[in-house]
Amino acid sequence: MAGNIFGKNFTVTTFGESHGPATGCVIDGCPAGLVLSAADINAELARRRPGGGGASTSRHEPDECEILSGIFEGRSLGTPIAIIIRNTSGRSADYDELKDIYRPGHADMAWDEKYGLRDHRGGGRSSGRETAGRTAAGAVAKKLLAEYGIAIQAWVSSIGGISAPSFGEAEFCAEEIEHNPLRLPSTRAALEASALIGSLCGDSIGGTVTCRVTGIPAGLGEPVFGKLDAVLAQAMLSIGAVKGFEIGAGFDAALLKGSENNDVPSGVKTFSSNNSGGVLGGISTGAPLEFRIVVKPVPSIAREQTALAKKGMLCRIRIKGRHDVCIAPRAVPVVEAMTALTLADLLLEQRLARITMGSL
Amino acid sequence: MAGNIFGKNFTVTTFGESHGPATGCVIDGCPAGLVLSAADINAELARRRPGGGGASTSRHEPDECEILSGIFEGRSLGTPIAIIIRNTSGRSADYDELKDIYRPGHADMAWDEKYGLRDHRGGGRSSGRETAGRTAAGAVAKKLLAEYGIAIQAWVSSIGGISAPSFGEAEFCAEEIEHNPLRLPSTRAALEASALIGSLCGDSIGGTVTCRVTGIPAGLGEPVFGKLDAVLAQAMLSIGAVKGFEIGAGFDAALLKGSENNDVPSGVKTFSSNNSGGVLGGISTGAPLEFRIVVKPVPSIAREQTALAKKGMLCRIRIKGRHDVCIAPRAVPVVEAMTALTLADLLLEQRLARITMGSL
Amino acid sequence: MAGNIFGKNFTVTTFGESHGPATGCVIDGCPAGLVLSAADINAELARRRPGGGGASTSRHEPDECEILSGIFEGRSLGTPIAIIIRNTSGRSADYDELKDIYRPGHADMAWDEKYGLRDHRGGGRSSGRETAGRTAAGAVAKKLLAEYGIAIQAWVSSIGGISAPSFGEAEFCAEEIEHNPLRLPSTRAALEASALIGSLCGDSIGGTVTCRVTGIPAGLGEPVFGKLDAVLAQAMLSIGAVKGFEIGAGFDAALLKGSENNDVPSGVKTFSSNNSGGVLGGISTGAPLEFRIVVKPVPSIAREQTALAKKGMLCRIRIKGRHDVCIAPRAVPVVEAMTALTLADLLLEQRLARITMGSL
Amino acid sequence: MAGNIFGKNFTVTTFGESHGPATGCVIDGCPAGLVLSAADINAELARRRPGGGGASTSRHEPDECEILSGIFEGRSLGTPIAIIIRNTSGRSADYDELKDIYRPGHADMAWDEKYGLRDHRGGGRSSGRETAGRTAAGAVAKKLLAEYGIAIQAWVSSIGGISAPSFGEAEFCAEEIEHNPLRLPSTRAALEASALIGSLCGDSIGGTVTCRVTGIPAGLGEPVFGKLDAVLAQAMLSIGAVKGFEIGAGFDAALLKGSENNDVPSGVKTFSSNNSGGVLGGISTGAPLEFRIVVKPVPSIAREQTALAKKGMLCRIRIKGRHDVCIAPRAVPVVEAMTALTLADLLLEQRLARITMGSL
Repeated sequence: MAGNIFGKNFTVTTFGESHGPATGCVIDGCPAGLVLSAADINAELARRRPGGGGASTSRHEPDECEILSGIFEGRSLGTPIAIIIRNTSGRSADYDELKDIYRPGHADMAWDEKYGLRDHRGGGRSSGRETAGRTAAGAVAKKLLAEYGIAIQAWVSSIGGISAPSFGEAEFCAEEIEHNPLRLPSTRAALEASALIGSLCGDSIGGTVTCRVTGIPAGLGEPVFGKLDAVLAQAMLSIGAVKGFEIGAGFDAALLKGSENNDVPSGVKTFSSNNSGGVLGGISTGAPLEFRIVVKPVPSIAREQTALAKKGMLCRIRIKGRHDVCIAPRAVPVVEAMTALTLADLLLEQRLARITMGSL
Repeated sequence: MAGNIFGKNFTVTTFGESHGPATGCVIDGCPAGLVLSAADINAELARRRPGGGGASTSRHEPDECEILSGIFEGRSLGTPIAIIIRNTSGRSADYDELKDIYRPGHADMAWDEKYGLRDHRGGGRSSGRETAGRTAAGAVAKKLLAEYGIAIQAWVSSIGGISAPSFGEAEFCAEEIEHNPLRLPSTRAALEASALIGSLCGDSIGGTVTCRVTGIPAGLGEPVFGKLDAVLAQAMLSIGAVKGFEIGAGFDAALLKGSENNDVPSGVKTFSSNNSGGVLGGISTGAPLEFRIVVKPVPSIAREQTALAKKGMLCRIRIKGRHDVCIAPRAVPVVEAMTALTLADLLLEQRLARITMGSL
Repeated sequence: MAGNIFGKNFTVTTFGESHGPATGCVIDGCPAGLVLSAADINAELARRRPGGGGASTSRHEPDECEILSGIFEGRSLGTPIAIIIRNTSGRSADYDELKDIYRPGHADMAWDEKYGLRDHRGGGRSSGRETAGRTAAGAVAKKLLAEYGIAIQAWVSSIGGISAPSFGEAEFCAEEIEHNPLRLPSTRAALEASALIGSLCGDSIGGTVTCRVTGIPAGLGEPVFGKLDAVLAQAMLSIGAVKGFEIGAGFDAALLKGSENNDVPSGVKTFSSNNSGGVLGGISTGAPLEFRIVVKPVPSIAREQTALAKKGMLCRIRIKGRHDVCIAPRAVPVVEAMTALTLADLLLEQRLARITMGSL
Repeated sequence: MAGNIFGKNFTVTTFGESHGPATGCVIDGCPAGLVLSAADINAELARRRPGGGGASTSRHEPDECEILSGIFEGRSLGTPIAIIIRNTSGRSADYDELKDIYRPGHADMAWDEKYGLRDHRGGGRSSGRETAGRTAAGAVAKKLLAEYGIAIQAWVSSIGGISAPSFGEAEFCAEEIEHNPLRLPSTRAALEASALIGSLCGDSIGGTVTCRVTGIPAGLGEPVFGKLDAVLAQAMLSIGAVKGFEIGAGFDAALLKGSENNDVPSGVKTFSSNNSGGVLGGISTGAPLEFRIVVKPVPSIAREQTALAKKGMLCRIRIKGRHDVCIAPRAVPVVEAMTALTLADLLLEQRLARITMGSL
């Protein structure tokens, strides 16, 4: 599989270029009997659309999906679920002058080196547009997980130097996340970050996204290569612009002693801390899954930059088009989607773990 | 595949419990014609063995491998290469009293929840011993990569709060890495870290490992789910005790502006900085691959801790046995092995990218 | 992967129910640079459509495909190629009375047992309509194979007791195959079979299809489980109504002595016979690939039959709707498509076989 | 995966050349809790060993396995089960003069074309010896299937022109199968076949093997590419020397009318005939699974033959060494093993089919 297929049991293939006819996904392995409608998917697609707060592109993406197969009378059949989302708003002409120039910080050169040709319009398949297919598939996975009481919530935890309060802190406000366009869990942080974004003058800024999953049963994850955190890390780094992943104490664990880092049990599957992030030995412990990713600043900035031309010489360019300033807010539903795909796959896999499990 | 198989083309299955008869691997997909001997593998296994400097267990692991198949007259046949390493030094009795107790910070409870039973001796398959199979497979992958001029070098970049110099800094000394048991690239850092370890009094400490790959051609990586950095992240998080992964600027990218983070091209496939870590859009750019991982402090500490017993009540335990104090130095060859497996797989995959590539 | 994905390198996912919105496929792993248009695919879809000669249903299927992704300026990008074919002619009401009855010889009961629910309209995903997606994908694979000089030709070799001449016999006429609606390679056989079909009075009849591939290089096939003939057998039996596969001498080999069955070499990669069917040890020898399949008589017949109702009692039914009488002629392009998918996958895999092959 | 891995859930990798140190397998995905010992595996390996009746080689293969991992206190852990069987009786010198000659009917030339080199001793990996690993893995799968009441029985149904009685005929005697070395289910057929074999004077003969599985629940098989009969066909054709597969009425279905071929239901999941062979639409119906394969005559015969030399010229050779005369009897346990692997994989997959199945 060349790289566009994710998961072993709940298997998703995504397709689509930014300015091609459509983007979408096919899910093979969704169990039969799941209640599902296009509205479930459209709700997540709407969250992925450009928001406001100055962070997002003004590209208009209505993003209504069409389900082509796999659903009958409102329920999944157990057959492949194909979903497409038409591309309607591509201003391809914006990209004409970039046809033979490799934008700094973008994958243009790497794609040419890999394939010998590429669709230069809007980044082709390396566009953020590609995440629409993931988000659609993730919406289905979320419905499946909800049947088992698993809930996923991501938010922007920092933009540039502006940090949001951590989960559990008094200032942390879950309701706020989807109420401000920057998806920060506090009005204070949202205001500060908004001011920062307003001051960038055509530049862009990085950020972090934190994700928390509750209701996850102990036992998910497939050592040694399919560990829950390993697959999750792959899922996260597969999202464009993500440059790092950490779970639980993460990089801070480098500074800790074992006596500090070990989570002391307070009962059965409960702990007085969560430095593990809900995973030990690659298997869920029953504690909430907690991890964090970093997204780099958007490479398309409205400033003149030095670039490499296809023919090999350096040149100066100024990128046109509509671009996000900070991708973190729009990454939130994508992080949730990829988390859902990872967990759906491992949840199904866990049905296979024991000889005595289930009627078969 | 339940989780013990890694890679699509250069496909590795590992097996083995800490105190079972043997650990090992089978490689399916190593191209025919590779010059390979047991000595190549034993050299890497020797690097994985406990070192000194106070960081490692005193368990004696001679770790001579036996190649059971796939090699004929010193060359790979294209058939599966099976390699086994006998387990010889397991003091199983050390673990008897832990049979029904879940060690804090370990996967004991999670394995029981997953499978309903487990081999409690030395952690069973969740032991660090499991990495012997990976290391053996990685040694083969390294030989393959060397044919194409790709070289991998990892080192300990920090232990607790003691940081090593970065690559490129004057103090950084590559020769030092394998000359001190802590695998730090400077004598100064090695001395400081050694003093820190000596002061831990039965406690343990975390650390970070940095890895750098040179000679990597542009074009490796399979968007959108098999991106080079995504697969690498999975590979790294699949190593026990690893809690985070970052590439290039990594988490620091959250603080950067696009104008700071974009690597300015200085020519064809060369850049004046490497914030990308050698990967853009999930595809190698020709710049060196640079990434960092964090390893948590070893959870088995020589202090009394609160633990959960299998029957559900809390108890106080003191863990016997021989344990590493800081796993970072021993993680170095494992990080290299998993990097090699990732790159070997993607290197082969790249043969499939174009219609005009190769005689077929 | 739940079963709707075929191939490791040239990986095809198909989707679609008979009376749902659309059927189609996504190809992941088609090398970049292949010249491809919708016309290439529509030509094969046209061959799959109901023909005449009394063998086929009168369902009108215009079957014009839409390519949603993966093609740019007439060439493949190396990204997933998504193709959809709208379903336009489903007379779903024909199936209303079969909603709770399991048609004899059909998969109705088995699907209910498997999934607990099913789309009963036209057989849902177990309909012959499902092969449209395979045929579309196969058209792309054929284009790829043609670049390397590989050509696939299948034909109907028997209908009921009427046998066509064998390839190489004087009576065998390749041009005739696509000139008569029964796809028999002789006018004599076509006339006889046509008479047989005309005499069936609402009953149906079985048949066989033979396939011959020329230009196939020696070396394709992946022992021991991915042998060329093994994957081909899977590909063929995955087509609805196929009940057997044989290669070369096939079942007649049971009657032969080694001295009779061994193909005597007449030079380098040439043989004086082809009892092997072009495959030895699961690897192509350079001789033409020759194999045969059997398709059972269409189970939907216009006669009253005993059937099982969902509630568990037996009943008598008469099946309405439009049905083929002999599926063999329409199976011909599907056999070719699945052969093409198998060979495309193994052709790419062969690029990985040796250390010295290709620039990587 | 290069071809030595079979199955998605109950995943088996086999390895080993005929005259290398060992052959074996690793099973990833065997559910935890299965009672298993080396004796279970040795019993099946003993059945695979050369028998008598003049059909088999006199090579002495003691074939005691060693389980290296995955079993603890007599039960499977859920971790990979690695099993090795040492090669002890290889008379490699017998093959020295065949080093540069391609034996007729063997894969020698094809392997050289594929890989550029090969282990010529005893056929290397293309030897029948390779089936020891499959048989070991199959023994584990059989134990798993037995837990769910599924029983597999294969037998030789013909040798040359001598046919055994069919299952259900009065003359068919199940007890006879393992009581005569030719594994024919009647003393009459065994005597006749024995006489035929005795008359071959250094030549060899083909045969067929029939397999019947009882206790198989309805619902197994994964349309559209992972249909039960499709995967079974792959499994069977992956066995060396197998040239055809048919299920139920098989090739005879070409001659039948729909009214004759449709199995009339006699109740819930029972039928008055079994032309389907227990599979409709690729899914088990609850009827016994019945299929047949053909094995070609052993190509190594004790007669002078024309062969191709590696350098490109034809020559005359006489093959030394110990060879089977008819492989069908020894194929019986291998057919059972591959059937068991197929069913174990699909049995596990069926746990994933529905949203309401199992506690997850």
